[in-house]
Amino acid sequence: MASAFIHINGQNFISTLHRSNHRRPSGGPIRVTMAQKSSYWTSINDDIDAHLRRVIPIREPFSVFEPMHHLTFAAPETTAPALCIAACELVGGRRELAIAAASALHLMHAASYFHEHIPLTDQPRANSRPRPGPTFGPNIELLTGDGMIPFGLELLAKSNNQDDDDEHSDRILQVIIELTRAIGSQGVVNRQYIKAQCDESNPGVGKAGSTRIVTDKKGSELHACGAACGAILGGGKEKEIEKLRKYGFYAGTIQKMSKLEEAVKNREVIEEMRRLALKELEYFDEEKVEPISSFINV
Amino acid sequence: MASAFIHINGQNFISTLHRSNHRRPSGGPIRVTMAQKSSYWTSINDDIDAHLRRVIPIREPFSVFEPMHHLTFAAPETTAPALCIAACELVGGRRELAIAAASALHLMHAASYFHEHIPLTDQPRANSRPRPGPTFGPNIELLTGDGMIPFGLELLAKSNNQDDDDEHSDRILQVIIELTRAIGSQGVVNRQYIKAQCDESNPGVGKAGSTRIVTDKKGSELHACGAACGAILGGGKEKEIEKLRKYGFYAGTIQKMSKLEEAVKNREVIEEMRRLALKELEYFDEEKVEPISSFINV
Repeated sequence: MASAFIHINGQNFISTLHRSNHRRPSGGPIRVTMAQKSSYWTSINDDIDAHLRRVIPIREPFSVFEPMHHLTFAAPETTAPALCIAACELVGGRRELAIAAASALHLMHAASYFHEHIPLTDQPRANSRPRPGPTFGPNIELLTGDGMIPFGLELLAKSNNQDDDDEHSDRILQVIIELTRAIGSQGVVNRQYIKAQCDESNPGVGKAGSTRIVTDKKGSELHACGAACGAILGGGKEKEIEKLRKYGFYAGTIQKMSKLEEAVKNREVIEEMRRLALKELEYFDEEKVEPISSFINV
Repeated sequence: MASAFIHINGQNFISTLHRSNHRRPSGGPIRVTMAQKSSYWTSINDDIDAHLRRVIPIREPFSVFEPMHHLTFAAPETTAPALCIAACELVGGRRELAIAAASALHLMHAASYFHEHIPLTDQPRANSRPRPGPTFGPNIELLTGDGMIPFGLELLAKSNNQDDDDEHSDRILQVIIELTRAIGSQGVVNRQYIKAQCDESNPGVGKAGSTRIVTDKKGSELHACGAACGAILGGGKEKEIEKLRKYGFYAGTIQKMSKLEEAVKNREVIEEMRRLALKELEYFDEEKVEPISSFINV
């Protein structure tokens, strides 16, 4: 396997690190191999994909499982589930322990996406929210979205039997609290409200400022939640969970900001986010942080 | 307190019981006092109501909690949460153990109700689904419904700390599986699909046959789930849980059928349901079944 070593973030990051006096204990920058980075995330994504295809096959009743299956895989990509697995592995947990939570995160993301794009009768034409790609119609997408989140949580709650560890059921409950809070009153819904209000006050605003910032925050929180859930399921200590939650928040923000049109303009902010994210990883064994740290090397 | 003794179901039920050879071991019909029946369910409903008002106050962010609070109490009545508490008490559990699950059941019911009445752009005018009472608009009701179910599950998962019993977290996980299955792929969503299909194939059909049967089944399953959840949280044995699940199914069907216009015409079916329901209760201590058995005395 080819192993071309690179420095994460390049010179800008290193100089920021020097200025703010946050050097890694060993003094050197984190290094990952390009091939290692790519194959690590590919292998995680393949495992999540295979798990989702196994637990949501096209089966009877077709009226339920056909749209659920197709909408599961039609949702735009999110990297929060992969981060959940990587956090689990960083604290020493096996991948299987976090696969159900990662799948639940994907289903939450997909359900939220389809509900955000349901055309409602109270929306002016300029502000309607049709989404790209084939659709099953608003009615089916509303009902499928309603089913996807409980289905993801059901699979997670059922995953309790896969481990002999007595503490595992407590950890799953803790993760259910994390996920339901992220999607419920405190998290995504709150963001969606703000988004809806931005949309309403600026009909036809499309991709403009305020809406985009709200969307970013939602993505950041889903990544923070995913990393925390992975750390919990992997048996991480309280401090490890909180460090990874913060890493997830910064990492999610970096992912989103890097994809925006004005990414070049935001270069300094992104570098600062990256610095803060890597600072959270300093708490962990340097050898082990390489895979997860490559997440923010976008 | 006045205590006018009555026979449940009257003569018809007793004669059915004789014919099918399913007599209670003691030979006599179950008896409850009218006042006892009334005060028992009132006290349960008051406790659920107080719990919901405590956990869903109108607080910041108001854009989230004001509609969530109002919609929680604007949903039409369902008796599944009360049945959950009664089942818990029948198997010897304290009421507090089931109050979070009962509240989650109410939130599930409310969310499902509001989503069923969201006006979508793909619905012909004859088949639009406006609901009675004040509304917050389709957008807010869609998002609030999305938040209510995870919020209910979050409160349930958090209720783990209220008991020192080591088995309690396993029981909560079991209940989360029950609830998510009921609302997810296997349960309510499936019913909603069928309902949506009935509506689509019979636009403007309103309260006609097939749609009504589907709605009944949904109510029955929510009651079955509620009774099973109460039995699990109260520490019931496997057989007790399954008996109460069946009792809940029959009880939910009776509740629904009794409210229909053709209830008089369905008298015989209702009596048969009642017979089957009471048969499930024969497994329990006769003295203890009085409160829960009064549920089907509609």
